[in-house]
Amino acid sequence: MKRLLPLLCTFVFLHTSAQTDSTWIRRVANEILTNGQAYNNLRVLTKTIGGRLAGSPQMYQAEDWGFKALQTAGSDNTWKQACMVPHWVRGGTDQAQALTAEGKRKLDVVALGNSIGTGKQGLKSEVLMVQSFEELDAKKDQVAGKIVFFNYPFNNTMVRTFEAYGDASKYRGQGPSRAAKYGAVGVIVRSMSHSTDNHPHTGATRYDSLYNKIPAVAIGLQDANWLAERIASSPVQVSMKTLGTFLPDVEGHNVIGELKGTEFPNEIITVGGHLDSWDNCEGAHDDGAGCVQTIEVLRAFKAIGYQPKRTIRFVLFANEENGLRGGAKYAEEAKAKGEKHIFALESDAGGFSPRAFGFTMSDEQFQKVSAWRSLIAPYGCSEFSMGGGGADIGPLNRTFKTPLAGLQPDSQRYFDYHHARNDTFEAVNKRELELGAVNMAALIWLVDRYGL
Amino acid sequence: MKRLLPLLCTFVFLHTSAQTDSTWIRRVANEILTNGQAYNNLRVLTKTIGGRLAGSPQMYQAEDWGFKALQTAGSDNTWKQACMVPHWVRGGTDQAQALTAEGKRKLDVVALGNSIGTGKQGLKSEVLMVQSFEELDAKKDQVAGKIVFFNYPFNNTMVRTFEAYGDASKYRGQGPSRAAKYGAVGVIVRSMSHSTDNHPHTGATRYDSLYNKIPAVAIGLQDANWLAERIASSPVQVSMKTLGTFLPDVEGHNVIGELKGTEFPNEIITVGGHLDSWDNCEGAHDDGAGCVQTIEVLRAFKAIGYQPKRTIRFVLFANEENGLRGGAKYAEEAKAKGEKHIFALESDAGGFSPRAFGFTMSDEQFQKVSAWRSLIAPYGCSEFSMGGGGADIGPLNRTFKTPLAGLQPDSQRYFDYHHARNDTFEAVNKRELELGAVNMAALIWLVDRYGL
Repeated sequence: MKRLLPLLCTFVFLHTSAQTDSTWIRRVANEILTNGQAYNNLRVLTKTIGGRLAGSPQMYQAEDWGFKALQTAGSDNTWKQACMVPHWVRGGTDQAQALTAEGKRKLDVVALGNSIGTGKQGLKSEVLMVQSFEELDAKKDQVAGKIVFFNYPFNNTMVRTFEAYGDASKYRGQGPSRAAKYGAVGVIVRSMSHSTDNHPHTGATRYDSLYNKIPAVAIGLQDANWLAERIASSPVQVSMKTLGTFLPDVEGHNVIGELKGTEFPNEIITVGGHLDSWDNCEGAHDDGAGCVQTIEVLRAFKAIGYQPKRTIRFVLFANEENGLRGGAKYAEEAKAKGEKHIFALESDAGGFSPRAFGFTMSDEQFQKVSAWRSLIAPYGCSEFSMGGGGADIGPLNRTFKTPLAGLQPDSQRYFDYHHARNDTFEAVNKRELELGAVNMAALIWLVDRYGL
Repeated sequence: MKRLLPLLCTFVFLHTSAQTDSTWIRRVANEILTNGQAYNNLRVLTKTIGGRLAGSPQMYQAEDWGFKALQTAGSDNTWKQACMVPHWVRGGTDQAQALTAEGKRKLDVVALGNSIGTGKQGLKSEVLMVQSFEELDAKKDQVAGKIVFFNYPFNNTMVRTFEAYGDASKYRGQGPSRAAKYGAVGVIVRSMSHSTDNHPHTGATRYDSLYNKIPAVAIGLQDANWLAERIASSPVQVSMKTLGTFLPDVEGHNVIGELKGTEFPNEIITVGGHLDSWDNCEGAHDDGAGCVQTIEVLRAFKAIGYQPKRTIRFVLFANEENGLRGGAKYAEEAKAKGEKHIFALESDAGGFSPRAFGFTMSDEQFQKVSAWRSLIAPYGCSEFSMGGGGADIGPLNRTFKTPLAGLQPDSQRYFDYHHARNDTFEAVNKRELELGAVNMAALIWLVDRYGL
């Protein structure tokens, strides 16, 4: 009788598809919230491998780890998809010191990713502080020979923190070349963060080939405020030493697991995160979280015996941080093979409590997914909006017009950790991480069941 | 011209009330997110005073701090409202040790609030583990002389963690008396948490006067799992020593600030949190956060020059944790004075990222506040639902049918810290705390402007 009761309940619930859907989502949620392996997987990735920048030995270790983790989770087919990746190395410990009227003070800095080093002899010059590119242009005659300090503040009044990041990150991306245009010899950028600590945040810079490549570092917020105060009263010199350089490209890999579809095996659904991270941190939120959530969706599907109608690919992308070569390769090979990609979902906004999904798709498709909102909302993603996806799945959309979705967890803490040394396993909460995977599993399941 | 432009903009925006509302909410939000003092206030409260249980010296220090903080924030009138509060003291360091076939092991325990101590001689007995009251009843003949271990797990599948807390906390509240009924000499409860650490979580227990009062402690989750495993293989004895006792009630205070209404001064709106906390932690999330957010709403209103139509009371309630005497006194005095309380809002669910407001009010009133949802949603509280309020404002509703609201931040991390030693300042994020205050300010402002 004990065994009959659940069976009877199941039959009662199956009589409408909405009930089937909610019952099934409840089932996968219970599996993840009760037997979840995402947190343990994240511990292994971050604590035994750590930072894993494209081209590094840790990149290869992470690929091997990911391959095995996908297999353990129950992947039908597992493979590595080769792609050439850039191989930037930091080359040593980044150093900087300020020399003011009151004396010397060490600054906590990190060289920007892809930046050229100062060489072992270092660099020393007076600092010119500007708040914006407009101020830089206005002061262009004062720039030659100086280190330009872009002290553009992260805009706290933007409630969605990714907007503030979009607003501020141009100083990291374009700052060095904009300053070099006027003869600067180095650049310091205020970290793109509203944290209360002093950790400097790295991230990719992009040199404009028209101008000299000059060394560039990020500085923590407390040091930035201190430096700004000193400069306001009298000239400050900074000496800095960085050793970044590019080695020749090497072969990296997207690591891919697959559940083969039973009804429409040629229709492919992709779910993923990126396996690489910056070298100065464990890359727990960015984007170990997205990787272990992706693996968890696979594990949970297998654990409850789900056989998808369509083929689902679980992809740990290579080289998101400083090249996007993994995402490009994935779409390129899909095109070459004539694959049909009907949907892609990425988790690359931290392992925080899930709140929303952002979609890049047609209005008609958005109308269809919007009807699923009430099924997913009880697990956290109560907001569905247009606009969103992920850097690694963007090429699928550009190649095939594949509809995209991005998991949007609560964003308030993300830029406390982003690309900084405190992006560690300890900054991730087990339950928030698992709930992200629950919401991803629910969306993937609905797309698999009903198409798009 | 520079000064005229903002004025012109203001006139343009004022032509519909929805625009006025959104403009005004943006203004108070910018004030809080740019010049917010909540985080600094929380630092002072938690780091210079710390735990502040009713009756303790820290209770009085916190009252003085709160009084000054309300004055500094700009309160028109500030006062302390006296009420007698219970004075339970822990009396020393709680200790426990397990004696198994393999040897001795220290257990990390904390006595339950309000519990009687073992006395200095301690207590030692065999442990009877049960998962539920039903199992206890079934094993009632085995209970006499034993320490009963309620190992009821926190239900991870409940996405809303307060549901899991409601489900599990009866073992803390009723467990000791239910076990004493069958002759138990002590109780251990599994902490009401899904954390990954081993910190024990305290909280109030309530003795039933029909049965002996017996000592009771909470145990961390790792120790609980370890103990359960040992007991499964062979009998385990536990020795425990706790020194809790009640001293005579003392006079404590609700600390109250006020902005006098300009149009309807007799219509009172209350916003608050509770000033007391358990003694084993800094009480940062529970409920330092609610107190400093309350003060921040006042500060921001004054900073932008807002003169409310109705009288707004900013209340730091006494003795929420083990008596609720502060909330009771507030309603009692309001009744005695014939005050008119039109709305009350409490923040007592942690200083996490705001997500929702829960309301206890008539359908008609809920319809009215629901129309404001789109004004508040951009700041985090995108969900409005019936059901919610706060323990300290409950008596207002029972006395006057005052409509209530409770701020509902993201709840996933709350029970990692609740009543445990890690509920410290460091566990609170500045921006999440401030956003909570923004949402509270917006709701209070709308109620002040439009009534209920």
